[in-house]
Amino acid sequence: MLTPFDDTYFMKKALIEAQEAYDRNEIPVGAIIVSNNTVIARGHNLTEMLNDVTAHAEMQAITAAANFLGGKYLTNCTLYVTLEPCQMCAGALYWSQISHVVFAAKDEHRGYRVMGGKLHPKTKITEGLLEEEASTLLKKFFIKKRNLN
Amino acid sequence: MLTPFDDTYFMKKALIEAQEAYDRNEIPVGAIIVSNNTVIARGHNLTEMLNDVTAHAEMQAITAAANFLGGKYLTNCTLYVTLEPCQMCAGALYWSQISHVVFAAKDEHRGYRVMGGKLHPKTKITEGLLEEEASTLLKKFFIKKRNLN
Repeated sequence: MLTPFDDTYFMKKALIEAQEAYDRNEIPVGAIIVSNNTVIARGHNLTEMLNDVTAHAEMQAITAAANFLGGKYLTNCTLYVTLEPCQMCAGALYWSQISHVVFAAKDEHRGYRVMGGKLHPKTKITEGLLEEEASTLLKKFFIKKRNLN
Repeated sequence: MLTPFDDTYFMKKALIEAQEAYDRNEIPVGAIIVSNNTVIARGHNLTEMLNDVTAHAEMQAITAAANFLGGKYLTNCTLYVTLEPCQMCAGALYWSQISHVVFAAKDEHRGYRVMGGKLHPKTKITEGLLEEEASTLLKKFFIKKRNLN
């Protein structure tokens, strides 16, 4: 059966968010949260614009999803994010007890796994979906930044 | 020399924040951030009221301090918090490159150390200051909750 709403469909939505961040001169990371095949929250990195280290795409999406649901637990939700979460975002996801985290590119320097962080034992993890698209956008951003300095 | 503004003075301010959380039926954790002997930010846990797992005392204080300073790095600041930060808050503190973290009570279940998280290598850590006061308030809260259920 063809399903129009599969993981790739939703990761592409997260990539659109990442592109929004790119266009605002932010490290291009985007996230969306889905419940029952519906996007209930989205966010993109705004740490520079908001002058706030906590303004990662995932953090904004978690807050927005809880707002939408009227409850702080995301037990029937999936997060799609274009870069592996950092330990801060992994910690927030841990508290939210989210069902499923799908991420595109690995973060070998500041990803939650290399930093020693943990997701909730109930959280399913899928990695590598549209990794190349997400990585290409990140690389393009850092090349642009380097050339401007 | 007598210094009116020592670590104990500031931790007492964080305990006042924790009491605010207690009075709102939130897990009583409070935090303040100090720069040049001045309190530049404060926060207390509001996860229930805001329905938001990210609304920890430290997260609010980090955002408020960056707002006050007009920059996202807290390299000349000290955080006083009544409970050991969780991995989410440790991650946010890591990104902020804060100079010093002083916490009162240990969190042996969800503290960043037992969860495997990390503060920034440049961050000095002091623990156990007014631990008993902070722990007593937490215990009182959980006894109250148990009796209500």
